[in-house]
Amino acid sequence: MPLDLGAKGSCHIGGNVATNAGGLRLLRYGSLRGTVLGLEVVLADGSILNCLASLRKDNTGYDLKQLFIGSEGTLGVVTAVSILCPQKPNAVNLAFLACPSFSQVLKTFITCKDMLGEILSAYEFMDNGCMKLVERHLKLTNPVAESPFYVLIETSGSNSTHDEEKLSHFLEHVMDSDLVVDGTLASEGKKIKALWALRERITEALTCDGVVYKYDISLPVEKLYDLVTDMKVRLDTDAKNVVGYGHLGDGNLHLNVTAESYSHSLLDAIEPYVYEWVSQYYGSISAEHGLGFKKKHYIHYSKPKEAVLLMQQFKVMLDPKGILNPYKTLPSKAVR
Amino acid sequence: MPLDLGAKGSCHIGGNVATNAGGLRLLRYGSLRGTVLGLEVVLADGSILNCLASLRKDNTGYDLKQLFIGSEGTLGVVTAVSILCPQKPNAVNLAFLACPSFSQVLKTFITCKDMLGEILSAYEFMDNGCMKLVERHLKLTNPVAESPFYVLIETSGSNSTHDEEKLSHFLEHVMDSDLVVDGTLASEGKKIKALWALRERITEALTCDGVVYKYDISLPVEKLYDLVTDMKVRLDTDAKNVVGYGHLGDGNLHLNVTAESYSHSLLDAIEPYVYEWVSQYYGSISAEHGLGFKKKHYIHYSKPKEAVLLMQQFKVMLDPKGILNPYKTLPSKAVR
Repeated sequence: MPLDLGAKGSCHIGGNVATNAGGLRLLRYGSLRGTVLGLEVVLADGSILNCLASLRKDNTGYDLKQLFIGSEGTLGVVTAVSILCPQKPNAVNLAFLACPSFSQVLKTFITCKDMLGEILSAYEFMDNGCMKLVERHLKLTNPVAESPFYVLIETSGSNSTHDEEKLSHFLEHVMDSDLVVDGTLASEGKKIKALWALRERITEALTCDGVVYKYDISLPVEKLYDLVTDMKVRLDTDAKNVVGYGHLGDGNLHLNVTAESYSHSLLDAIEPYVYEWVSQYYGSISAEHGLGFKKKHYIHYSKPKEAVLLMQQFKVMLDPKGILNPYKTLPSKAVR
Repeated sequence: MPLDLGAKGSCHIGGNVATNAGGLRLLRYGSLRGTVLGLEVVLADGSILNCLASLRKDNTGYDLKQLFIGSEGTLGVVTAVSILCPQKPNAVNLAFLACPSFSQVLKTFITCKDMLGEILSAYEFMDNGCMKLVERHLKLTNPVAESPFYVLIETSGSNSTHDEEKLSHFLEHVMDSDLVVDGTLASEGKKIKALWALRERITEALTCDGVVYKYDISLPVEKLYDLVTDMKVRLDTDAKNVVGYGHLGDGNLHLNVTAESYSHSLLDAIEPYVYEWVSQYYGSISAEHGLGFKKKHYIHYSKPKEAVLLMQQFKVMLDPKGILNPYKTLPSKAVR
């Protein structure tokens, strides 16, 4: 499958497509907009729209299926999917690295793209706040020296000798140039799983930490962590923890704030500040999740009003009675 | 650029996006639906729709830009594009191989995906009829032994030593198993260009051969050449040449028929037979080019009538006066 994500144990493919799920390997295999080849959709009037082709190239008229990918079920219900699956890799390798600063995380990424190139299949990062949470709440062990940032790099390729050679040249280079201060490698199932758990189980650790305010954001990669730093300063002792992690290779940050209990004043301190912050750098306030009903009124921070009006016209055309997943994705009144 | 195609010397990026151009390396870098990150579009009422983000992940509302990709300018005019460019490869290698049958072309492709994996960037094929045309009309030289089929394989990677090793293991294997009877390799600019010319200049050679009837078709890859074989038998001496070439890795066939002069009876022998043939295997009658005005009435061979009706509703909504690239892409009357 070209898609892999933390929710893989419980999510459904129809939901993945309806929310245009991103996940861990978008960096390598691209978005569902490129990998979904066909869809069957049930429309609001109960009729079935069959766009279930499995062709890589098909330019016969408009690509209707795109409208349903990421529409969160508000335009139709996805009932069948045809998806392009890449060749299964013969070799998978993982590196878990400790970086002394975010600027080193970025430099490591640039080096990585150059030296690992086509075998790079994930470039994830987490800050030390995240590491402390998985250690405390889930009893996981940090496999490297404590550092402000950690990076998880995955390679997937057809030749294990070549891949290991590329990875060891890369590691030599980043250690010699002090981009990375410590690291560990894995090429067999159990250790790979243990290293991925450090990154994939952050969400679980956060829920153990208290009430969680969650933000899923896209930003230019060099600005990615500034938002976390600013938020830490802004919230200070009002928050229990302010942490950042995510899919750095895709410019996708998961910003999370925890507190002992729900507080309206804390929420007011975060929102709309976080959306204004993202908007000034032309980022996205909802990167790989949908707007749902919580964020539909904030859509104008990422989209101009002409675009929202056009979306509302599509909604009225395809679902005139508003019966498909009502109250989601779009504001019901015109955005000004 | 993630896109490369025969028309690279004269095409424009706005046109590429408007027609959802496919080309030579879709196999590796995917379609424009995945690589186009943002668009600026002028709508029928003269207003500008700004969807010019450059984010890899953005799920804030419906992805409006998708509607304009591949709509052939009938819904809006693309005036700016933001596109995701992959890392430039350090090493590029080409192999030009001679195959004794189409079934061997297919087996070579399967072997190729397994042994070259992530470095494979193009898998093109041409039949001997195409080779004879480029030899006769363009004075190009066949670099390998004359065979019923030829395959052009391109690899693009970050490490030339690794890539050459993969390629030579692959070649050893396909020669030993008699999938390939002769072959030549290229890793430097001039020879690479000369080998690509054999494939890229087929269109030019065809125009020198007489009147050309051109078809751009997607089919399940194992059925791809049967259409050419059937057409040869069907047209017999009525055609001067019936040849097939194309992007085998994407299931995309370019079927071409030439004749000394235009003949309505020859066209009637080809159409709608070719569209019926494609339709029975759920193929596409317009793979990487658009329907334009010549093929708009044949859309129902690839799309169900519910889909065409929905497309017509989009057209009416976005261009009520029908002023954008009129008479193209969609039939004006309802398809039954």
